[in-house]
Amino acid sequence: MSIHGKTPAYKLASRERHPEPTVVRVGKQAVGGGANTVIAGPCSVENREQIIQVAQQLKQYGATMLRGGAFKPRSSPYSFQGLGEEGLKYLAQARERTGLPIVSEVMDIEHLPMACDYIDVIQIGARNMQNYPLLRAVGRLKKPVLLKRGLSATIEEWLMSAEYILSEGNPNVILCERGIRTFETATRNTLDLNAVPVVKDLSHLPIIVDPSHGVGIARYVPAMSLAALAAGADGLILEVHPDPERAMSDGQQSLTPAEFNLLMQRIEKLTAPIAPEVAARSV
Amino acid sequence: MSIHGKTPAYKLASRERHPEPTVVRVGKQAVGGGANTVIAGPCSVENREQIIQVAQQLKQYGATMLRGGAFKPRSSPYSFQGLGEEGLKYLAQARERTGLPIVSEVMDIEHLPMACDYIDVIQIGARNMQNYPLLRAVGRLKKPVLLKRGLSATIEEWLMSAEYILSEGNPNVILCERGIRTFETATRNTLDLNAVPVVKDLSHLPIIVDPSHGVGIARYVPAMSLAALAAGADGLILEVHPDPERAMSDGQQSLTPAEFNLLMQRIEKLTAPIAPEVAARSV
Amino acid sequence: MSIHGKTPAYKLASRERHPEPTVVRVGKQAVGGGANTVIAGPCSVENREQIIQVAQQLKQYGATMLRGGAFKPRSSPYSFQGLGEEGLKYLAQARERTGLPIVSEVMDIEHLPMACDYIDVIQIGARNMQNYPLLRAVGRLKKPVLLKRGLSATIEEWLMSAEYILSEGNPNVILCERGIRTFETATRNTLDLNAVPVVKDLSHLPIIVDPSHGVGIARYVPAMSLAALAAGADGLILEVHPDPERAMSDGQQSLTPAEFNLLMQRIEKLTAPIAPEVAARSV
Amino acid sequence: MSIHGKTPAYKLASRERHPEPTVVRVGKQAVGGGANTVIAGPCSVENREQIIQVAQQLKQYGATMLRGGAFKPRSSPYSFQGLGEEGLKYLAQARERTGLPIVSEVMDIEHLPMACDYIDVIQIGARNMQNYPLLRAVGRLKKPVLLKRGLSATIEEWLMSAEYILSEGNPNVILCERGIRTFETATRNTLDLNAVPVVKDLSHLPIIVDPSHGVGIARYVPAMSLAALAAGADGLILEVHPDPERAMSDGQQSLTPAEFNLLMQRIEKLTAPIAPEVAARSV
Repeated sequence: MSIHGKTPAYKLASRERHPEPTVVRVGKQAVGGGANTVIAGPCSVENREQIIQVAQQLKQYGATMLRGGAFKPRSSPYSFQGLGEEGLKYLAQARERTGLPIVSEVMDIEHLPMACDYIDVIQIGARNMQNYPLLRAVGRLKKPVLLKRGLSATIEEWLMSAEYILSEGNPNVILCERGIRTFETATRNTLDLNAVPVVKDLSHLPIIVDPSHGVGIARYVPAMSLAALAAGADGLILEVHPDPERAMSDGQQSLTPAEFNLLMQRIEKLTAPIAPEVAARSV
Repeated sequence: MSIHGKTPAYKLASRERHPEPTVVRVGKQAVGGGANTVIAGPCSVENREQIIQVAQQLKQYGATMLRGGAFKPRSSPYSFQGLGEEGLKYLAQARERTGLPIVSEVMDIEHLPMACDYIDVIQIGARNMQNYPLLRAVGRLKKPVLLKRGLSATIEEWLMSAEYILSEGNPNVILCERGIRTFETATRNTLDLNAVPVVKDLSHLPIIVDPSHGVGIARYVPAMSLAALAAGADGLILEVHPDPERAMSDGQQSLTPAEFNLLMQRIEKLTAPIAPEVAARSV
Repeated sequence: MSIHGKTPAYKLASRERHPEPTVVRVGKQAVGGGANTVIAGPCSVENREQIIQVAQQLKQYGATMLRGGAFKPRSSPYSFQGLGEEGLKYLAQARERTGLPIVSEVMDIEHLPMACDYIDVIQIGARNMQNYPLLRAVGRLKKPVLLKRGLSATIEEWLMSAEYILSEGNPNVILCERGIRTFETATRNTLDLNAVPVVKDLSHLPIIVDPSHGVGIARYVPAMSLAALAAGADGLILEVHPDPERAMSDGQQSLTPAEFNLLMQRIEKLTAPIAPEVAARSV
Repeated sequence: MSIHGKTPAYKLASRERHPEPTVVRVGKQAVGGGANTVIAGPCSVENREQIIQVAQQLKQYGATMLRGGAFKPRSSPYSFQGLGEEGLKYLAQARERTGLPIVSEVMDIEHLPMACDYIDVIQIGARNMQNYPLLRAVGRLKKPVLLKRGLSATIEEWLMSAEYILSEGNPNVILCERGIRTFETATRNTLDLNAVPVVKDLSHLPIIVDPSHGVGIARYVPAMSLAALAAGADGLILEVHPDPERAMSDGQQSLTPAEFNLLMQRIEKLTAPIAPEVAARSV
């Protein structure tokens, strides 16, 4: 329950202090504790029709939450930056139609109150994993927070960032492994599934996996999704776009709805027999 | 079937040239093509009794081959370097008792003819992945070769090293992902399971996974073993030692025989329902 | 002037668009264009006496600006977080006594107006290199910005972050290489001096080097300081603390004032004969 | 003199056991101890005229040894593999004309006796840094060995590889930093100049730097050469080719003889005033 026998600097995030796995409630749903969360949706919300239509398909195929970016952190100031509040409104309309809770990224403290009017889970992106003012700000809320691992963050640093949120009073933290930066160029990032058993060992917080960003190439996403669940992850977050080739961002890593449907069937086949065993696992 | 659309420099290793998956025959066994290979055994052969006893247990619990190091590549010239030919003799005796084929590392071209008298699969270790004279030498044999990925080798470089062996006339190459070097220190290496679907896509060669070296901590090995198989790997290579705390090398990453037994039962439960689907996968 | 022949996504930061090196004015001083900037001071401002005393010594030994952290980004929420505005006041008092301009980090957009009342150069730390709202906010100011490279940022991504600032109208960007994250554990980070000629080639912006964070061990800082200047850097930023063993943060990488004095003499000896040549360099 | 206070596993390579810097003699020349070694030449020996002509120019411009590959470790079995013994003969002829000692790589133990008839310094390449049989074999010789750092070798592992050579009885080891593998793609590798002061601190062995492989782009080589010497390196190894665009390997990182000449003048200007100080440095 520690790395190389050292006492960890995180306290509230530590499994030693809190032996039972944390279950984060999002509406009527649970993340962690044996539930199998599948968050799906396009990288960016592009327009009202797109997000409502894809949400309906995702719901039908078994997704448990809807993702979609309204504020996009882009390497270039000249790239599409997202629809902003308008995008959040469309997401809320998709929720009305489908009942799927909404996960969306917020980068800016001043947007938090407005964003909280629309979204169910606040995503902190990899680039902001050590944006401490932002972590403290979401720590003062009660909304669940999906905390992505930074591109070159050690697992210990990631848990320390969770600690920032927990220490402000918000216990509803969901960790998300999304790939780390290595020398390998065949994949966009290196999805680090080792993080799944390590986090389960060190912490009580639920952990989900983002194979879309982790491997970055759609045809490798199904294999890594199955692997993540077999490793013990509490769920997945997946990019699904009705027409990946025309996506305004990250098309090359997006599944089509049909591919998502097929993956969900494979997941069902994989996880049904191992579900009780996975639920009981601490590592 | 290529990385970022570039024509690869490997030819014989390429899936385009050879669409059917290669099945490597080791005695009566098959590696690849839907078979589930489980190679297990201690890091080092330490004495005759140890290896025979552990081989019998491994056989009983379902291992399909026996591993054990006789020539050990150690960072320090002052560390235990293995029993040499004596170790190979003990391995051969364990095979006699159990019928398990033998996998063992060779580092030195001049040891090859002697080693071939004892072993069934020649392992090329991570440190020698680009030792081209050694690759050419095993390429002139017919024995199956287990080619481990170098610590900082890209997948493309790894396939190029396989090409060295194939181009000399030996088609019996089994790839083995064993963890890459990254900034993360919570694990010994970063087991890169992304390599499994990528290799399946680019190449027809079978790929197995070594979670023992990949993650380096025994309690994380079962989760990563299950993940590797769910990702589509053709098998596993695992360190199992009757008394890990007294092992002469790599004890901290070795399972006990009892833990191995338990893992094999979990593997059975996981893979039975997905086996037909995995066998049919190309990615 | 491009990486592997690709047209870069940055425009305003590009050397092609702006062949002459940018010189950033900080009061009467110049950064870039042949000037040799030496920013020095403690990691954290700890109290009024400390910062004034060390500033006087640094001035005497040849530093051209004073650094000191008032808002500290710390991995742990339980570590010393800096003195906040009080620390900035002490820095301003040190400036009054010595005339040295002040460089200090700001992490939080809402602190910017207040911080601008005290400091001369706003530092954006490595963890915030892709905090786009913060980059845009400092881009709307006229104050010089010291933009540190992220721990795992490529040089191209770093220039894209500079572009965020430039594209909002603030041309006064100073880049700062401070070490990247690699597998090497003998040093805290891997100071990437290759970035110096690469940045000089791709961009017109001045670049300084932070060997204190880059190598992380005080006794290696002088060698890397000399190397940075020989590579063509426009200056250095160095941690100097009157009593490193008692420093509230980063003591192990801080020089004493006496060591700083000695280093300044070595720098003088090194740079005097090569100064005209370095000033003329584009790579 | 140790990494994080741990007792190192290397003994003979340790500065504690051997406080004085080792000076390796190559003919009448010295490597280490204040001498400034400059080894230059083409990546591959391509033909007799090429190597003799370039050797004469290099000698004239101040190189102290000649490099050239006769046995080339190439990622692809289909790439040019070097001229073999014929290449060594041409190198020996170039030495006859110029007096420059010869540095060339050997990958294969069985080639060692033959190669020793021609060359003065045996180069062990990065891919073979942990080829222990090869290290032991060159350890049983008396010839100086240039030991390149592996692409992902820690400094400690590199010193352990030196220990393999030293422990067999050959004290004539010259270390060579040649770039490590990181996520950065703007440069071929990341030349890790931090290794220079760290090695000087931990070990008595001389260390030279290979900026040609380290940065991989010719126009960045001069800046990194100057930086390496300012960091305290005992010398450089540089790729120089009469016509880089037509080189059979590594043309993009080769200087022309004219560029080499210019660099040598810049080196002279840089190192003359700091030479006594560098010679006296332990870090």
